[in-house]
Amino acid sequence: MLGAGSWGTTFSKILADGGADVTLWARRPELAREISLAKRNSDYLPGINLPPSIRATSSLEEAVGESAFVFVSIPSQSLRSNLAALAPLIGPETVVISLMKGVEKGTGLRMSEVLEQGLGIDRDRLAVASGPNLALEIAKEQPTAAVISSASLATAEAVAKVATNRYFRSFVNTDVIGTEFGGVLKNLIAVAIGIVDGVGYGENTKASILTRGLAEMTDFAVAYGAVPETMSGLAGLGDLIATSSSPLSRNNTAGRLLGQGYSFTDVVARMQQTAEGLASVAPILTLAAARGVDMPIVQQVSQVLAGTLNPRDIAPHLTTDSLEPQGERPIDGRKNRGGPSLRRPFQRTLDQLRNGGRGAGGH
Amino acid sequence: MLGAGSWGTTFSKILADGGADVTLWARRPELAREISLAKRNSDYLPGINLPPSIRATSSLEEAVGESAFVFVSIPSQSLRSNLAALAPLIGPETVVISLMKGVEKGTGLRMSEVLEQGLGIDRDRLAVASGPNLALEIAKEQPTAAVISSASLATAEAVAKVATNRYFRSFVNTDVIGTEFGGVLKNLIAVAIGIVDGVGYGENTKASILTRGLAEMTDFAVAYGAVPETMSGLAGLGDLIATSSSPLSRNNTAGRLLGQGYSFTDVVARMQQTAEGLASVAPILTLAAARGVDMPIVQQVSQVLAGTLNPRDIAPHLTTDSLEPQGERPIDGRKNRGGPSLRRPFQRTLDQLRNGGRGAGGH
Repeated sequence: MLGAGSWGTTFSKILADGGADVTLWARRPELAREISLAKRNSDYLPGINLPPSIRATSSLEEAVGESAFVFVSIPSQSLRSNLAALAPLIGPETVVISLMKGVEKGTGLRMSEVLEQGLGIDRDRLAVASGPNLALEIAKEQPTAAVISSASLATAEAVAKVATNRYFRSFVNTDVIGTEFGGVLKNLIAVAIGIVDGVGYGENTKASILTRGLAEMTDFAVAYGAVPETMSGLAGLGDLIATSSSPLSRNNTAGRLLGQGYSFTDVVARMQQTAEGLASVAPILTLAAARGVDMPIVQQVSQVLAGTLNPRDIAPHLTTDSLEPQGERPIDGRKNRGGPSLRRPFQRTLDQLRNGGRGAGGH
Repeated sequence: MLGAGSWGTTFSKILADGGADVTLWARRPELAREISLAKRNSDYLPGINLPPSIRATSSLEEAVGESAFVFVSIPSQSLRSNLAALAPLIGPETVVISLMKGVEKGTGLRMSEVLEQGLGIDRDRLAVASGPNLALEIAKEQPTAAVISSASLATAEAVAKVATNRYFRSFVNTDVIGTEFGGVLKNLIAVAIGIVDGVGYGENTKASILTRGLAEMTDFAVAYGAVPETMSGLAGLGDLIATSSSPLSRNNTAGRLLGQGYSFTDVVARMQQTAEGLASVAPILTLAAARGVDMPIVQQVSQVLAGTLNPRDIAPHLTTDSLEPQGERPIDGRKNRGGPSLRRPFQRTLDQLRNGGRGAGGH
């Protein structure tokens, strides 16, 4: 396991509790020592006892060794810089699994694509793990399910087998694109939910945004080659609900501060750590525009970030000119059934986008 | 508007705030008087000011009058007994809209079917309203969306037009079956979420159950003729999330008490009012069995009600023999990929069902 943050450490516990022999790589020698000797990671998982069998080391070479599976849980934006050192250590049969969620800044590549490029290994030896996976809850052994996805079904099944124990169950699919985009896109919707929380709206408004948000996520992912069913499953809907419901989520917190009226700069200053969702808004809107995908919620989040939309006016289900329910596909192919009076709110959104939307892209 | 409970009163406010002329029927004359004179319904919507234009009466004849639209919001199990008095009052052009969620005990009929039988009117003049509609939040004018469904698109659109205002937006579809079953089925999943809350599990477990629960709801509704997209929309997913997130929901409360270890009898005694979800478990499982639909979560709720399953063991994503993600359709048509060791939890469920499942059906 490469990376001893809260998710890397928790996933090491999952694997060890399932009977696997796990060596955890921590960049800082003192953290490796604490894990190996005290079986604790007090910085990232305070109060959690790790399985006695877990070993940790600060030597990448020692951590990889002859491992059949190398799990990678490194901050998404520093992944590429670590791959040069890793590449020569990976054996010809080793399977590499990404536990990371995000797209690389600048390139817009998914994490498995960065691994493929940086390690020069075949797609069939790559897998990704995703799902409703709040680390601390799993560390406390609360029942949870996950998805392991790989272009090779055999690889996904082999990984799922080692990543299953009495409280954690892994399922498989071969839709790597959908599985990875689910983990990126849900952060953007979680920011919108946080904004609405901050404003003080309740469960109806949030349920409407989650429903419409899942439709946006699905449209985007399908435009990039995903299977729609993936977005209705654990890596889409499941992860979306868990992230949006957790007050511990950084994306939710960032949204709540925005909803309370703090500016983007204030939020970044207050949070110290970057919320992945804020960083993804601009690249995702660019990718959406490239394939003609309409994402009204993400656009409204972008407008709130740019300061051109009052958080109180976020209400995506009101900003459309169609009478068809949001989150449902048209059932009879007709569009634009709303009268002129229903068009106005949507028009306002378009105007605001023209005036202010581009500015948000710079963040 | 027939019925002056919290939803009937709130929906009257929605209509009046959209410009409609509303007369509200309350069975009790003193409640009709309070609404007409004080513009308050302090029993059901404490602290909410109703629009000055709303009138109320305890005379059914006066309430219906020459109305173009008759909205019905009467407790689902007493609906039929009210229809004999209502039938002769309904004009040949009047549109009747059900605001009720549930199936009739004994017959298993949906509310629009009970209206159709009891009023003897054509399906094209019937509509239903559904969605993520927690009454008190809407009464506080928090932005919310709903679905109006009718076999006749023109009818649905006419109703949606009067049921739209600055904080409430109605969309339309023609999938009455899916729209009504969404409102029934979500109560069952909300009970399961309540159970998990009562046990003390967190967001991962709940997100897994919601994801799998939506798949069960969809399988059931589609088996009875619904369009799957309806379940991904406001009347399915939207309503499911709102109900499951609301600590005020009776279904959620009933589940929480069960999760804390109270028996079915204790819960009924403590709650005074029946939770719709508890009453629907047996009829829905009967309907599911009739069409060969597998509903593991609803079955587990039934087992908890029967006292044959420890609430702590509710973990539907662990009780399957397939490696395919719950909430996703198989992507390659293959089933039963799990090895023998993965089959055991599912077998346990089947055995428990055989021993205890039938008992739960009696509640």
